[in-house]
Amino acid sequence: MQDSSDNAHKSPLYLEDITVGLKFQTGTHRIDERQIVDFAGQFDPQPLHFSAKAAEESFFGGLVASGWHTAAITMRLMVTGGPPLAGGMIGVGGTVEWPRPTKPGDVLQVEGEVVSITPSKSHPDRGIVAIRTETKNQRGDAVQLMTAKLLMFRRSAKTA
Amino acid sequence: MQDSSDNAHKSPLYLEDITVGLKFQTGTHRIDERQIVDFAGQFDPQPLHFSAKAAEESFFGGLVASGWHTAAITMRLMVTGGPPLAGGMIGVGGTVEWPRPTKPGDVLQVEGEVVSITPSKSHPDRGIVAIRTETKNQRGDAVQLMTAKLLMFRRSAKTA
Repeated sequence: MQDSSDNAHKSPLYLEDITVGLKFQTGTHRIDERQIVDFAGQFDPQPLHFSAKAAEESFFGGLVASGWHTAAITMRLMVTGGPPLAGGMIGVGGTVEWPRPTKPGDVLQVEGEVVSITPSKSHPDRGIVAIRTETKNQRGDAVQLMTAKLLMFRRSAKTA
Repeated sequence: MQDSSDNAHKSPLYLEDITVGLKFQTGTHRIDERQIVDFAGQFDPQPLHFSAKAAEESFFGGLVASGWHTAAITMRLMVTGGPPLAGGMIGVGGTVEWPRPTKPGDVLQVEGEVVSITPSKSHPDRGIVAIRTETKNQRGDAVQLMTAKLLMFRRSAKTA
């Protein structure tokens, strides 16, 4: 799988480097029928995700990606082209919405913004950063809206 | 990928068949290091998910599955062994939490309960059913808590 960006050479960001309102935009990823069917076979084996013919009779009238596939691609785009968080991008949870389906040929891109920073009371070396993301297709329509809570570490945690 | 249950022969459930409090339990799925590394390579290419050695230095002290992998396996278990919803299990969104990581060798199983049913005002042939699920490992510890909103259809929608 290839995306249009690579995060490997950016400096890692610590909790103190993050501010509310910080925005980012990832690279892009093109999804095709083979990827959709392959993911469905592994994780969401329903006709509307793995059979173009059966999907014609379904709610969407054609093949669409599993919402979890859209979520997984969103994660890939954030890991490869989002903010390079020190210690990794470790999610503790969040909310997700799929306002419209992802279809074969769609080119996805993620736009994100930090919406809150909550220092931990019990662990002063870390905190929770909430990021709101919008995963858009090539027409600019949102296929996923998410608010993800990520665990982040202070620079001092490195030597703790 | 093999699970311990199969939903293929159950009768489809329509909106009018569902009641708040309805409970279900899926089959099980065993996750191994190969699956974790394979998913990470495709969707969450971070050392803590794809390199057992690098993961030793990470927050979790060893290889753990991407949260999105746990979510995807949860979906698989629900599709293959959860309630067989007419028209498919179509999620419109929800909330997800990962209170602890999924590790190689874990055997996952999903328990679920219907928590609310909201008929659509604009489309009388359908409604939104909220299901709260807990994905547990073989020790009974929750690795994922989710409330998913699913689109469901009335029996009458079939001929609409």
